[in-house]
Amino acid sequence: MYEAIDRFVAKYIALTEEELAFFHSLLKHRKLKKKSFLLQEGEICDFEAFVLKGCIRSYYIDKDGVETILLFAVEDWWVSDLTSFAEQKPSHLFIETIEDCELLSIDFKNKSLLFQKIPAFERMFRLLVQRALGVLQQRFYASVSQTAEERYLQFMEKYPLIAQRVPQHQIARYIGVSPEFLSKVRSTMYKKH
Amino acid sequence: MYEAIDRFVAKYIALTEEELAFFHSLLKHRKLKKKSFLLQEGEICDFEAFVLKGCIRSYYIDKDGVETILLFAVEDWWVSDLTSFAEQKPSHLFIETIEDCELLSIDFKNKSLLFQKIPAFERMFRLLVQRALGVLQQRFYASVSQTAEERYLQFMEKYPLIAQRVPQHQIARYIGVSPEFLSKVRSTMYKKH
Repeated sequence: MYEAIDRFVAKYIALTEEELAFFHSLLKHRKLKKKSFLLQEGEICDFEAFVLKGCIRSYYIDKDGVETILLFAVEDWWVSDLTSFAEQKPSHLFIETIEDCELLSIDFKNKSLLFQKIPAFERMFRLLVQRALGVLQQRFYASVSQTAEERYLQFMEKYPLIAQRVPQHQIARYIGVSPEFLSKVRSTMYKKH
Repeated sequence: MYEAIDRFVAKYIALTEEELAFFHSLLKHRKLKKKSFLLQEGEICDFEAFVLKGCIRSYYIDKDGVETILLFAVEDWWVSDLTSFAEQKPSHLFIETIEDCELLSIDFKNKSLLFQKIPAFERMFRLLVQRALGVLQQRFYASVSQTAEERYLQFMEKYPLIAQRVPQHQIARYIGVSPEFLSKVRSTMYKKH
């Protein structure tokens, strides 16, 4: 059960067997059916979850009921609302499984305990947050500087495996257009190429 | 020269005098005139800078020449393009002073050295990146879910001191509208209240 997460951790920090065992003792193993909510708007996010199996999306719903997808998470990704988690305040996000999922999650209390006992984890989580910031900054940049077609092509190129696993209408909501608009973009693209 | 940054660091981690002196030895003190560039698109960002005095903005310019402001940084804030810095790859950002500025900056080599010698800094920088992620996530949320008026009011409420220091047309470029549009929003608001 811990092979994938141990491989992940080993990319960032070196731990003793004992430290690793302590880390495992703080994790909770969870299985979730497709279309289950891990988090809904207004709740405080009390997990950071490592995906062992499956696909998850986190998204906002605006006041017109339109969804904007912030992130797709698949195997070896972490998913959370870090701000809600860190500050223990209500989230604006929904986090929902797209497929049947298996996760290892850590809650706020245990993450604090982890940092207390094994400060090396500060480094791993710093690098993780840094990567998340990079992804979001790239998205922010794309949203102000690229056309829908460019954002679509970039998504397909960057995440080819995710693209095969999520429906087109969700890809539309990730790149920030309506599903109808994405259909038009795709048909224009295919005519061009 | 180090009072402000020492106060800042002390909020996150406890250091010995010796560690603090080592940290200081890695910093570079810089004075910059108003409207100086710290970074231009295409360059690799080789600094994280702590603002001792002054006001700085980081922004994108899209292919139509329109500016979108990512961040205003004033005293006690850090400014950088963290992704470009961490991965040592070209930036999409411009970082430019709005006022005469005084900074303390650390470069990539010295930051690596810092983590090597004083791992406690991992914690401080993790919390910093986490805050930056929170700010950007909030902006992303606002850009998809709030009207320009809501974003303007939120900016004025959240950053009253910055609002006094930067011109209205830059606030417009922060909340993602044209200066003309912001003028209309403001005059409608004043009529309403």
